[in-house]
Amino acid sequence: MFEFRREVNYYETDMMQIVHHSNYFRYFEEARIAYLSHIGYPYDKLESEGIISPVVSISCDYIKPLTFGDSFIIKIELVTCTATKFIVNYGIYKDSILTTSGTSKHCYINNDGKIISIKKVNNAFYQTLLENM
Amino acid sequence: MFEFRREVNYYETDMMQIVHHSNYFRYFEEARIAYLSHIGYPYDKLESEGIISPVVSISCDYIKPLTFGDSFIIKIELVTCTATKFIVNYGIYKDSILTTSGTSKHCYINNDGKIISIKKVNNAFYQTLLENM
Amino acid sequence: MFEFRREVNYYETDMMQIVHHSNYFRYFEEARIAYLSHIGYPYDKLESEGIISPVVSISCDYIKPLTFGDSFIIKIELVTCTATKFIVNYGIYKDSILTTSGTSKHCYINNDGKIISIKKVNNAFYQTLLENM
Amino acid sequence: MFEFRREVNYYETDMMQIVHHSNYFRYFEEARIAYLSHIGYPYDKLESEGIISPVVSISCDYIKPLTFGDSFIIKIELVTCTATKFIVNYGIYKDSILTTSGTSKHCYINNDGKIISIKKVNNAFYQTLLENM
Repeated sequence: MFEFRREVNYYETDMMQIVHHSNYFRYFEEARIAYLSHIGYPYDKLESEGIISPVVSISCDYIKPLTFGDSFIIKIELVTCTATKFIVNYGIYKDSILTTSGTSKHCYINNDGKIISIKKVNNAFYQTLLENM
Repeated sequence: MFEFRREVNYYETDMMQIVHHSNYFRYFEEARIAYLSHIGYPYDKLESEGIISPVVSISCDYIKPLTFGDSFIIKIELVTCTATKFIVNYGIYKDSILTTSGTSKHCYINNDGKIISIKKVNNAFYQTLLENM
Repeated sequence: MFEFRREVNYYETDMMQIVHHSNYFRYFEEARIAYLSHIGYPYDKLESEGIISPVVSISCDYIKPLTFGDSFIIKIELVTCTATKFIVNYGIYKDSILTTSGTSKHCYINNDGKIISIKKVNNAFYQTLLENM
Repeated sequence: MFEFRREVNYYETDMMQIVHHSNYFRYFEEARIAYLSHIGYPYDKLESEGIISPVVSISCDYIKPLTFGDSFIIKIELVTCTATKFIVNYGIYKDSILTTSGTSKHCYINNDGKIISIKKVNNAFYQTLLENM
């Protein structure tokens, strides 16, 4: 379980005076990229090696809204990890209360957009992911 | 079934040279709001009457990426409609090919953030929704 | 003078209940790209030929705020056009009242990021720009 | 001179593989809000007291692009401060090199959108701003 701390930015709110629901997917992405750096695989380095992991599907449940001025923690967990896909769960906590939860599913592609097996292309990274589940 | 036409904006792309996955939720919102206008209930008018319909949960499946210069159609359909919630399905089509699908679930709240029954608060709107399913 | 029509999207507002100031630069970009299409040079086609026109500097004056539900027109005018740069003025009008004005300055670069002369690289485009000032 | 540290997020890039020019205004806003917190006046507290400081005009010069993975520092300086307006300068530095500079001008309004004198409404805040120029 990796934790990522963040504050709500003003420009992330909408006229309902809460964070616009689309921005949570950006928070999830920040947390996911911080997690990859944390385990030794910064995403810019992976992309420079031709390993791209686009989002295949994503979902979010909005339990309590976040507003400007809020500090929150994203708890991120790799729940599935195979040679061709991985699934990540996210929980956003404010004052230890779960406010938002989400899941994203990713595949691996190369620079030509072809599906690749991460086990074949970068087994060290794959093993590190498995160890960090 | 209501159809909403849109083109991809440059600023909606990311360095993967495709539309960033978070932006599809903004497309869905545009289509949903256009649909409400289409059936005679512009969302700004609903909010000015104190009827707010926040997103409770949302999901998206990314089948084929959209890129800058693409024109697409969002087919939007109200699939569930009760006094306290509604569920909308979205399909994004480019050249008649489904590229993206999604679902959003909404409740109704008033200006104090309390859950309301749309049947009690604005039955004419509720009936119009039922007729447009 | 080219005119571009647009409506404010919900997600473009912030908790001040007006369009966030950063979004006007996205409106300007949309208008600029529509203008290029209008004169026969869609920007995706220019980029596919290796002609990129990044923003060198940009500014905006906010006279009256736009809010969700507003329809507006952007009047766009090419005011300077040389072999290596162009300057565009923007005026946003709501109900014929000027609400926002702005200016952007652009250069031309190729795919390697080198400054290019548009007169040498694509003179037909350059002449079209001059004719549309 | 106040310094604010930040990293480029993936979703802030565009298909030119650099940070989209509109996002720098969001970086400036983050730095400005961090500066206000630093001098003891968090912006959410100011707004809750009915003190709003919208952007009147803003500009940015793009010297070198930022890309995903970049760390940068924003040096922020209050350069003008009167009872009814303030002007802020921003310089973005990567590896001690100036990559971007900008300026924003703000007024003060109350919840009714009326221009207010900050000297009259909250003189302690005004004096703190003067001391931090």
